Amino acid sequence: MKILVPATSANLGPGFDCLGLSLGLFNSVVIEKSNLFSISIYGEGSENLSLKKNNIFVSIFNEVYQRLSGKKDAFRFIFENKIPLSRGLGSSSAVIVGAIGAAFEMAGFRVEKQKILNEALKYENHPDNIAPAVLGGFVVSVVENENVLSIKKPIDENLSAIIVVPNVFMNTEQSRTTLPMSLSLKECVFNLSHSSFLTACFLEKKYDLLAIASKDLIHQTRRMKNLPELFEVQKCALENKALMSTLSGSGSSFFNLVYKEDVKYLKQRLEQKFKDFKILVLEFDNKGFEIC
Amino acid sequence: MKILVPATSANLGPGFDCLGLSLGLFNSVVIEKSNLFSISIYGEGSENLSLKKNNIFVSIFNEVYQRLSGKKDAFRFIFENKIPLSRGLGSSSAVIVGAIGAAFEMAGFRVEKQKILNEALKYENHPDNIAPAVLGGFVVSVVENENVLSIKKPIDENLSAIIVVPNVFMNTEQSRTTLPMSLSLKECVFNLSHSSFLTACFLEKKYDLLAIASKDLIHQTRRMKNLPELFEVQKCALENKALMSTLSGSGSSFFNLVYKEDVKYLKQRLEQKFKDFKILVLEFDNKGFEIC
Repeated sequence: MKILVPATSANLGPGFDCLGLSLGLFNSVVIEKSNLFSISIYGEGSENLSLKKNNIFVSIFNEVYQRLSGKKDAFRFIFENKIPLSRGLGSSSAVIVGAIGAAFEMAGFRVEKQKILNEALKYENHPDNIAPAVLGGFVVSVVENENVLSIKKPIDENLSAIIVVPNVFMNTEQSRTTLPMSLSLKECVFNLSHSSFLTACFLEKKYDLLAIASKDLIHQTRRMKNLPELFEVQKCALENKALMSTLSGSGSSFFNLVYKEDVKYLKQRLEQKFKDFKILVLEFDNKGFEIC
Repeated sequence: MKILVPATSANLGPGFDCLGLSLGLFNSVVIEKSNLFSISIYGEGSENLSLKKNNIFVSIFNEVYQRLSGKKDAFRFIFENKIPLSRGLGSSSAVIVGAIGAAFEMAGFRVEKQKILNEALKYENHPDNIAPAVLGGFVVSVVENENVLSIKKPIDENLSAIIVVPNVFMNTEQSRTTLPMSLSLKECVFNLSHSSFLTACFLEKKYDLLAIASKDLIHQTRRMKNLPELFEVQKCALENKALMSTLSGSGSSFFNLVYKEDVKYLKQRLEQKFKDFKILVLEFDNKGFEIC
């Protein structure tokens, strides 16, 4: 059996721990029953030996599989990782979602996306990456009694993402320590209005309002100070046809939304200016987790 | 010339200073050029002499009219007020929006809704009532450089509003003093996620998710403590087929959304239990400010 899980970009500016979307960049995993446990990793993380020894995918998969099936079977895992690690592109969520979805399938259970989502929330307690990783598209979520409630909207075909991937890791947990414990009412109203408005921009296809909608007062500036070049990335993108330009998750990557016709233009500008950073042009994914 | 301006219900739970919708309950004003200034008030506020002497509609109208036309003309005003005063149903916004729109028309200017909206923001510095009063429907707004940006969605015909109007005034300014100066990050994320999700519920017609989406941690509980019976109103509504039940603006009214087929059922329950409060069954308005 083979599964695919997409990269995701969460927060999207003001929608902290709430909004996310799914990118056309996938980790795939082939899983087969086997007499002996074995693991092969290709692509991102393949050079990292500890990923083989303490593989989070395998441990979540085994946990869920054993709980569902009551059996301790051995499997062969072949990972083909395309999602960069620790760059704010949802690699952890892809692991969690993929492992849970695969365990349901291998244990002979019907793979229901809502169940994967609620299970995934136990491993990552905010829904902004796991929801688009499961569902695809643009997704807005709330958590109620440990259930994830999500509303999904497919993203238009005439849009592309340009991701700027710095050569620097950012650890989500560490990045969270830069956040304030409390916010002024004004900051809070700013973010809730912008997050709601941004949601409406995606649902009603008002993409030209996204530059304003995507402003944030909670997390971006505080986190970007750890890598000040990101302020330049955002400025360059917004001055060169990006519809919005936001820190992807907790960073270090930057997510830029553009009309397809503007991809070449913005890509060139970013490549000229940020020679040390990787620039990825991606489609959007509207399917989410998939069993091939 | 005659204008109509609808009542509005703002905040809608989590969408503090951001979300609002327009109700089928209107103030109308007839304005005619005249040799002498005169004013007649029927309906809500007609018994209040100070409303005749220091009429806010007239002063805003004169201010805008004189600025636009360069003239100081006299007018005859006939008000027919249906929107209850100081009950959180947007009576102030209706006055502001109506006065500005009427002044544009009487001064011979094309009445553009966006212009009314930006002008209205000078008199009420949050857009959650003025935007639906101008545009009708469900409206999500942000303010950017003193401009109101709004996205509107008409509300379905199979829905009605049941408004519970207590026999107690609530002053918006005073009600605002009960709000906290700062909020925890957790409260802030709760409201921004719920406000965004509620926006998606209205735009994607997922009305059955509104009871969860409409939860709030910023203002409702704090304000409702001024009139504890409101907790009973909300509980009764949600237990008796209301899709959502939220404090209307800063109160004292409560806004309840129901499917048309459930209007009778909920109305009876509320009437039985809250005999001192007025229960209004209203359609939604999807047009906003109108010149008849």
